[in-house]
Amino acid sequence: MSSKPTLAVVGATGVVGGALLGILSTRKSVYGRIRLVASPRSAGRTLTVCGESVEVVALTPDVFDGVDIAMFVVPDAVAAEWAPVAAARGAVVVDTSAVFRMDPDVPLVVPEVNGEQVRPRPRGIVAGPGCLTLAMIVVIGALHRTYGLRELVVASYEAASGAGRAGVDALHDQLERVGGRRELGTLPGDVRAAVGESGPFPAPLALNVVPWAGTVEDGGWSSQELRIREESRKILGLPRLKVAATCVRVPVVTAHSLAVHAVFDRAVDQREAQAVLAGSPGVVLLDDPDRHEFPTPADVVGTDPTWVGRVRRSPDDPKALDLFVCGDNLRKGAALNAAQIGELVAAETADG
Amino acid sequence: MSSKPTLAVVGATGVVGGALLGILSTRKSVYGRIRLVASPRSAGRTLTVCGESVEVVALTPDVFDGVDIAMFVVPDAVAAEWAPVAAARGAVVVDTSAVFRMDPDVPLVVPEVNGEQVRPRPRGIVAGPGCLTLAMIVVIGALHRTYGLRELVVASYEAASGAGRAGVDALHDQLERVGGRRELGTLPGDVRAAVGESGPFPAPLALNVVPWAGTVEDGGWSSQELRIREESRKILGLPRLKVAATCVRVPVVTAHSLAVHAVFDRAVDQREAQAVLAGSPGVVLLDDPDRHEFPTPADVVGTDPTWVGRVRRSPDDPKALDLFVCGDNLRKGAALNAAQIGELVAAETADG
Repeated sequence: MSSKPTLAVVGATGVVGGALLGILSTRKSVYGRIRLVASPRSAGRTLTVCGESVEVVALTPDVFDGVDIAMFVVPDAVAAEWAPVAAARGAVVVDTSAVFRMDPDVPLVVPEVNGEQVRPRPRGIVAGPGCLTLAMIVVIGALHRTYGLRELVVASYEAASGAGRAGVDALHDQLERVGGRRELGTLPGDVRAAVGESGPFPAPLALNVVPWAGTVEDGGWSSQELRIREESRKILGLPRLKVAATCVRVPVVTAHSLAVHAVFDRAVDQREAQAVLAGSPGVVLLDDPDRHEFPTPADVVGTDPTWVGRVRRSPDDPKALDLFVCGDNLRKGAALNAAQIGELVAAETADG
Repeated sequence: MSSKPTLAVVGATGVVGGALLGILSTRKSVYGRIRLVASPRSAGRTLTVCGESVEVVALTPDVFDGVDIAMFVVPDAVAAEWAPVAAARGAVVVDTSAVFRMDPDVPLVVPEVNGEQVRPRPRGIVAGPGCLTLAMIVVIGALHRTYGLRELVVASYEAASGAGRAGVDALHDQLERVGGRRELGTLPGDVRAAVGESGPFPAPLALNVVPWAGTVEDGGWSSQELRIREESRKILGLPRLKVAATCVRVPVVTAHSLAVHAVFDRAVDQREAQAVLAGSPGVVLLDDPDRHEFPTPADVVGTDPTWVGRVRRSPDDPKALDLFVCGDNLRKGAALNAAQIGELVAAETADG
C-alpha cells in the first residue's frame, strides 16, 4: 500500500453517504484518492469531497481494484453481496450495515471504546454497530472502564431518520398536516385521521410516539431491542451483560436519545461519574438542570459527540446510575464512526 | 347524610375540571345535587353536568355547607388552602393535587389497586396520585398481585397537557411554526430558532424531546421522578420498593406513556402476564406487534383505561418484564381517578 491509502465510499449518494462526505471533508485527510461509488442509477453525478469534485461510478467488482479501504454506507442486502467482493479484491471493508456485526470473524468497533479490536479481521471486514447502540455506547464504555458494567435497562427516543429518507419525509408530511390544527390530539384516532398514511412507521408519528422499531422477533421483542443487547455485549466484551431495551420512535427528525439505567460492579458517585464523562473522548457532559442544561435532540443534531446529562445515582441502589444520552444517528450513529474506523485502518497501513 | 350525597367540584372551569364534568355525566349517577365551584373570576358562568345547567359559584367557605363530597381539581396552592376548609365543614375531600399525597393521615388511592384504603382518613381527605403514576399503576398493581413487585425502572414519554393549558398552547404554537419547514431538524439550534419561546418547557418541544419535568431536587433528580417512586411505594404498600425513573416530555398533546422494566419476586411468563393484564379491571391489553398492535398516545387519548402492550419477559432475567403503557393524563391521570374515589366514598355513605 502507498502511505496515503485509496478510499472508496460505497453508497455515496445516500443520506448517510452525504453525511460521510461532509465528515471526510472536515477531518484531517488521511487518504490519497477517494473513489465515490453508488448504484448505476446514481452513477455519473458529481459530488464534492475534501474540496474536489468527484464523479460517482457505478458499483462493479472493478471499482475496488487498487482500493485500500472501502466504506460501505448501503442497505443490508447491498452490503451482504458487495462487501465480500471488495474484501476479495484486497480492500479493508468498513461496513455500517447490520449484516456482519455479529459474525465472530468480524470485529465490531467503536474507536473510543474498543479501537484496538480493529484487527485481527479474518474476513477483511470491520463493522460498526447500529445507530441506537452508537447513541449511548461511548458513554457506557467510559463508565464501564471506571465502574464495571453489569446491567443496562434502556428506553429509546428514536428519530425519524433512523428509518431513512422515507422516515424523514413521512414526518414532515405529517407535521404539515397537523400544524395549525389546534383541536387535534384530544380524541382517540383524531391524529390518525389527520395524518393519513403513516409512511414507514406502523402508526402516526406526528403528535405521537410509536413503541416499535424493527422486525418482530421471538418473545415479542423487536430486532432493534435485541440488537442493542448483542452489540453492547460484543463491543464491551461482556458476553453475559444483562440488557433490556424498549425502542420507541418519536417525532424528531435526527438524533436518537436514550434513558439509561446502568448497574455496575462498584458503587458509583454522581460527581465522580460526571467528571469521568466530562473527561472522556467523544463525550460532552451537559448536566445542570437548574440552568436548563441537558442534551436534547434539537440541540445536538449535526454534531459529532455523544451528549450526556441527567446523571443521577439511583435512590435505591448505590451501584446504579440513571442518565439521558443523545447522539446524531447519521453522524456518530453511522458516518462518523465509519470515518473513525477508517482512520484507524489508514494509520495501521501507513505504519505497516 | 341523605342516601344520594351532595357533590362539590372545585376547579370546575379548568382543564381537568372540564374532563371531570364530562366523566360525571357519563357514569352512573351517585350524587343528589352537584355544586360547581371556581375562582371568583369564573363565577357566574353556566356549565352542564349530568344533563343539567349549573351556575358556577365562587370559592368561599360557605360553598361547602351541606356538601358530602368535595372533589378538588385545582393547583397545589389552592388545594393546600381550601381542602382543609372543606373537610372542616364536614365534606370528604377527594384531592388531585400533590399537597396531601404523602401525608401519613391521608390515604393515596387508586380504586383498582387499593380502593379499600379509602378509609380510615383522619383528616377527611383522600388523595389521588399524580398523572404519571396513574399512567402505569393499575397495570403495575395487577402484576404485583400476581408476581410480587421488587423493582421498577421507568422512562416516561409525557404529554404537553401535563403542564396544563399553557403546555398545550405552547406545543400547538410551536407546531404551527415548524409545520411545512422541511429543512428543520438537521442543524443544532435550528428548531430552537424556529420555535422561539418554548412556553412552560425548558427547551423546544416541537421536533424535540425534553428530559425534564418538575422542579430540581437533591442529586439532580426532578420532583416528578421522585414522586413516581414515593407514590408507587405508598399505593402498593411497598415502602422499600426500588424505583428509578427518568422523566421526558414529548410533543404529544395528551396521554402519558412509560417504558417500564419491572422485576418481581417470582418468575414471570409472557403469555400468563398478558392474560393477567387482559383480565384486570381498568386495563386493556393491545399486544400484537405483527399486526402493529400496541398502544400509542394518539389512539388512547380520550379513553378511560390504562393501555398496555409490548409485554416481554426480559431476555436475561426470568423474573423481569418489559412493557409499554399509555394512559390519558387528564382522565385516569386525574379526573377519572377522582370520580372513581368519589364513587367509593358515596357508596360508603349510602351504606352508613
